[in-house]
Amino acid sequence: MSKHQSKYSTIHYESYLKLQELLSIQNLRSEAVGDPAHEETLFIIVHQVYELWFKQVIHEMTSVINMFSSDSVDEKNIGTAIGRLDRIVQIQKLLIEQIRVMETMTPMDFLEFRNYLFPASGFQSFQFRQIEVMMGLQEDKRLTYNNYHYASVFDDKKKAILEATQAGNTLFGVIEGWLERTPFLNFGEFDFLSQYRDAVSKMLKTESTAISDSTYLSETEKEQRLKMLAGTDSYFDNVFDEDKHKAEQEAGHLRLSYKATIAALLINLYRDEPILHNPFRMLMTLIDIDELFTMWRYRHAQMVMRMLGRKMGTGGSSGFDYLQATASKHQVFRDLHNISTLLIPRSDLPVLPDNIKKELGFYFSEQSK
Amino acid sequence: MSKHQSKYSTIHYESYLKLQELLSIQNLRSEAVGDPAHEETLFIIVHQVYELWFKQVIHEMTSVINMFSSDSVDEKNIGTAIGRLDRIVQIQKLLIEQIRVMETMTPMDFLEFRNYLFPASGFQSFQFRQIEVMMGLQEDKRLTYNNYHYASVFDDKKKAILEATQAGNTLFGVIEGWLERTPFLNFGEFDFLSQYRDAVSKMLKTESTAISDSTYLSETEKEQRLKMLAGTDSYFDNVFDEDKHKAEQEAGHLRLSYKATIAALLINLYRDEPILHNPFRMLMTLIDIDELFTMWRYRHAQMVMRMLGRKMGTGGSSGFDYLQATASKHQVFRDLHNISTLLIPRSDLPVLPDNIKKELGFYFSEQSK
Amino acid sequence: MSKHQSKYSTIHYESYLKLQELLSIQNLRSEAVGDPAHEETLFIIVHQVYELWFKQVIHEMTSVINMFSSDSVDEKNIGTAIGRLDRIVQIQKLLIEQIRVMETMTPMDFLEFRNYLFPASGFQSFQFRQIEVMMGLQEDKRLTYNNYHYASVFDDKKKAILEATQAGNTLFGVIEGWLERTPFLNFGEFDFLSQYRDAVSKMLKTESTAISDSTYLSETEKEQRLKMLAGTDSYFDNVFDEDKHKAEQEAGHLRLSYKATIAALLINLYRDEPILHNPFRMLMTLIDIDELFTMWRYRHAQMVMRMLGRKMGTGGSSGFDYLQATASKHQVFRDLHNISTLLIPRSDLPVLPDNIKKELGFYFSEQSK
Amino acid sequence: MSKHQSKYSTIHYESYLKLQELLSIQNLRSEAVGDPAHEETLFIIVHQVYELWFKQVIHEMTSVINMFSSDSVDEKNIGTAIGRLDRIVQIQKLLIEQIRVMETMTPMDFLEFRNYLFPASGFQSFQFRQIEVMMGLQEDKRLTYNNYHYASVFDDKKKAILEATQAGNTLFGVIEGWLERTPFLNFGEFDFLSQYRDAVSKMLKTESTAISDSTYLSETEKEQRLKMLAGTDSYFDNVFDEDKHKAEQEAGHLRLSYKATIAALLINLYRDEPILHNPFRMLMTLIDIDELFTMWRYRHAQMVMRMLGRKMGTGGSSGFDYLQATASKHQVFRDLHNISTLLIPRSDLPVLPDNIKKELGFYFSEQSK
Repeated sequence: MSKHQSKYSTIHYESYLKLQELLSIQNLRSEAVGDPAHEETLFIIVHQVYELWFKQVIHEMTSVINMFSSDSVDEKNIGTAIGRLDRIVQIQKLLIEQIRVMETMTPMDFLEFRNYLFPASGFQSFQFRQIEVMMGLQEDKRLTYNNYHYASVFDDKKKAILEATQAGNTLFGVIEGWLERTPFLNFGEFDFLSQYRDAVSKMLKTESTAISDSTYLSETEKEQRLKMLAGTDSYFDNVFDEDKHKAEQEAGHLRLSYKATIAALLINLYRDEPILHNPFRMLMTLIDIDELFTMWRYRHAQMVMRMLGRKMGTGGSSGFDYLQATASKHQVFRDLHNISTLLIPRSDLPVLPDNIKKELGFYFSEQSK
Repeated sequence: MSKHQSKYSTIHYESYLKLQELLSIQNLRSEAVGDPAHEETLFIIVHQVYELWFKQVIHEMTSVINMFSSDSVDEKNIGTAIGRLDRIVQIQKLLIEQIRVMETMTPMDFLEFRNYLFPASGFQSFQFRQIEVMMGLQEDKRLTYNNYHYASVFDDKKKAILEATQAGNTLFGVIEGWLERTPFLNFGEFDFLSQYRDAVSKMLKTESTAISDSTYLSETEKEQRLKMLAGTDSYFDNVFDEDKHKAEQEAGHLRLSYKATIAALLINLYRDEPILHNPFRMLMTLIDIDELFTMWRYRHAQMVMRMLGRKMGTGGSSGFDYLQATASKHQVFRDLHNISTLLIPRSDLPVLPDNIKKELGFYFSEQSK
Repeated sequence: MSKHQSKYSTIHYESYLKLQELLSIQNLRSEAVGDPAHEETLFIIVHQVYELWFKQVIHEMTSVINMFSSDSVDEKNIGTAIGRLDRIVQIQKLLIEQIRVMETMTPMDFLEFRNYLFPASGFQSFQFRQIEVMMGLQEDKRLTYNNYHYASVFDDKKKAILEATQAGNTLFGVIEGWLERTPFLNFGEFDFLSQYRDAVSKMLKTESTAISDSTYLSETEKEQRLKMLAGTDSYFDNVFDEDKHKAEQEAGHLRLSYKATIAALLINLYRDEPILHNPFRMLMTLIDIDELFTMWRYRHAQMVMRMLGRKMGTGGSSGFDYLQATASKHQVFRDLHNISTLLIPRSDLPVLPDNIKKELGFYFSEQSK
Repeated sequence: MSKHQSKYSTIHYESYLKLQELLSIQNLRSEAVGDPAHEETLFIIVHQVYELWFKQVIHEMTSVINMFSSDSVDEKNIGTAIGRLDRIVQIQKLLIEQIRVMETMTPMDFLEFRNYLFPASGFQSFQFRQIEVMMGLQEDKRLTYNNYHYASVFDDKKKAILEATQAGNTLFGVIEGWLERTPFLNFGEFDFLSQYRDAVSKMLKTESTAISDSTYLSETEKEQRLKMLAGTDSYFDNVFDEDKHKAEQEAGHLRLSYKATIAALLINLYRDEPILHNPFRMLMTLIDIDELFTMWRYRHAQMVMRMLGRKMGTGGSSGFDYLQATASKHQVFRDLHNISTLLIPRSDLPVLPDNIKKELGFYFSEQSK
């Protein structure tokens, strides 16, 4: 057979997708023990679909981590990376919506075969743990699961893979590195930070004047609001003082390095400059991914509540409480999210000097004028 | 090992879900021919997820057809059947939303590995054909696919299964039978049809008066609208005249039997009576399923358009045109849908005699007063 | 002009919907102060749409409360009530999805006109407070808003309305009353509770055996799980002992009365009995409404985080923190939700005696056999 | 009062949003004629919400048309324009999902007050007509409405506005102009078209070889597919021959000018080049808008079918048929959509010469290396 023929040899939908294998691995435990439960098919298929999507998420996440692992990220790659991260976003939306399908199973139908699943549990999904580790979830931020290490349910080979993933490049790590390397951090003569500090002061001053001059608020209310406003100052302190930022990092309140934080702030502030469009979309997509995993954990918890109430899960965990708690805790890109606190009105943005503006624009459009 | 132990023997998430098998059957053709394409993984996984959901749909549809195949459908079963059909609805919504994930693949990325898939095609999904046949899609209503019989892409064993399914009980068939058997068709002394005819006349009369008396419409407009209104009469004719209905059936304009149509009309009109709640929800869910398959075909066509434009699909079909055309043609429960045309204002509904009302209510609530 | 003519006098879409009025009340503050901001239009319209939907929610909630306020709720009304509550559910889904539209506004664009809105705030939405009070949110469960009473932002007339609503019938109140009155609480000779207690014991025993017999778990794990399992006992205690239930109520851990709780449990357990279909759907819909308001608050908090970060809201609140906190606290039907904890496998359900089964079935279907 | 005070004078949520006005314009016709219908409130509010969103769509569309009306579109504006068009996309998704809320009204409840609405009709929505005209829907492409001009339901002032909008800049028009002006159409020495022609030939040759060499297809099938494949040639002809393109335009098969079509093709083919990211997203967003209006009309038709069946609408139209028909006909950016047909595998893309590549990259990233 010629090489050519092997290349375009014919293939059938069924063999291509390995449907015979795929459709023969829904083996009901309830059937095996002679007590078949109609709903167990749904239970298996829902979880198999989850695992297929997890494989896809890992495929995309791996490729993005690899792209960003080198010292110089090709500009073109950013577009591709955003596309792949956005695919993760679309898959996450499906993962969330899929819960509705699971919720068509009634608690009492679930209880019919639940005992046969023991002690299998969604907490044993190796791929989901891989995703968490690849994202950059830190071990000391993890909620423990029945006081055991989250990896204790896996065999040694799998444990080793998780450890290696954790030790290697994570999405958080490569994004932090990429931000630290952004060339536009170098402003030459232009002292960005001092101008930004002025803009922040102006914004806070406007607000305090508005409070003081208000004919609507009582004196007590004014006082209280001015006090709150003063409190927001502290959010900006870390930006103006690298040492404070480091202290916050050491205290575990912040994770992202100072340099990467400043880069992320600049990308947010000057997101309208053509060269920053894609970096900005990249940061937004990472926040989306974080938020959607949070949402998924939250909806998952709601579903467990409907199904089991506060009963113990098959894996021995207090399912609802664990999921509810991880929803808000297991976020990775919280520091990117918090950049919003540091934004100022567009009209107060320090005006970039022409030479920088030119660098941030497209060479082409400059030329063509 | 005791029987007890075998029943509650322990099981791990991974072995329960056959994850090793599941996650090892994404074999890229592009890789096999030495030209690996990153996006082919998505292509395979998206289709495998579809097929898993199709298996679930078949599982539910089979169970509902079986429940309704007997002469007497247990009242309790209707609730269960609605639950299972509603599960199909929720799965269909996922099938539609899943297209968004596929659309994250760009046409040019798809073209990279498309040739290696040849002549595999979604038209070769056996499970989807099974679903269509189980729904009750009639062979003579099918659009041909490149002028070939839709089953020509399958081997003899599969063809035989499709033929047997078609010859056996379909969802359309068992629902029609169930409607024909509904006991509340028997009204005794109460002449429902003549009272309904009066109500229809009243409704049409009110409308024509409103047109004639309008100070807003021109004479030409009035004339035109009155003509249109007169035209709606014909929709009601088949209800009042079984022979006309049969003629329409023979002409292929209608499919549902006269008796079943009247039952469906009654269920729609008196849906507020407790005993008709579930039958009504049943009919609505069937219409939902029909509409959602239509929507899925439609979105599928849009996606093919984005991916290939009007290029030929890998299966050799004019993908977009075929899908677009089937969207509206391959509906099964159109006659149930058309019942809406026959509805009248609630206040004009013929009042049921007490003895019938009592039969339609709950024995319990009557007793407890 | 005859009465008839006035009834069907002609009307134009524009005058019917008062479009002239509707489309002339988007008055930009930024424009008024001579500093027009393109995005303020979106801000106004998004909030006006919210308020229109709130009006609709109040319309439906009022009608359902009225229906259930009488001592005997007509069976037919339950169907209507479910329909109206389900409409609230569909509106809530829109409220949540609408946040995506708001999120198309960038933080920096928002900051452009935010100062002009001061101190207006979403916390001043009177209709939303009405909804909360109508639902049955108790004043002492409310999180305070800057340490002020939630109604402090309203004038006396509005405060009086809120107080009257709180003092009158709420959704929680009328549902509790309806549950307490359910006739099927009376089982005659049949001692439901003792049989249910046996089923619970059996379920817990099966589970503990499965733990003890496991060849997979270590001794420490077994011990831990058995301890957790023993802990679940307590969830059932309140059901078996009215006094314990009352103590929990007094301690503020439970709100729903003992009688209503037992009724809700029965409805959940015997939901397949035809007469309980609608009561069960009613309870599910109430849980849906509760969960969707939670989800809305949660998404709202996420949006505020994107827009303002941890800045103070225009109303002077720490917007994100307040919304995040209310998301899980301001639930009203938590006790209905917790019923899931009390469910047992369908096959262990105490078998109802024939006379009760007959009462729970449809008179009609009994007769027709 | 100082200028300052007027600027930050205090404002309440209620007065800012004109809630008193907003919430007092839901006047039920059924109430006015003494026959109040609970569901009419929903009907009014749903339509008012639609009109508020239409106002927002017009606001965004106007601003984008203005931005693109000048001869030179600022690069920064493209990002802003995409943001605003994407806002339209998000609103359209809401418009579609909102139909679910309307569908909670039963046909029989609608019929209760439908006669009082006569002859008001959604076809009288002036804002929706404005949107269609602003999009660039051509008058001769419109389906007639009861054989009357679509604007016949409006007064002279409104008719004049629609005519002026049609005569002025439309979204289609300014986008066509912008595409025609794209500087990257000028390739200097590089003969794009001849290289592209080679790539197309290669793609078609690969496909025909795959068909001929297939061991799976019968001779008849091969013949048929090769014939179909030959047919796709014609799609490319217009690109290679400006005269053919013009002939197609004159025949009404195409609308977009030759120059703009080539620009759109280039943007699609070289979308990975940084400078083309935003132009590509712009084209995709326009296709999204087109598709979502199609989807909205389609779902709207489904909803009318549920509500009225094939009854005449209050506006005198055959509602379902009209909406169903406009769904696919009233598309404006069909030519952009059809570009997909012209795409080729990424690996066959003519390689751009270095000087052009440099122009398409970011000056900055080139410099910094």
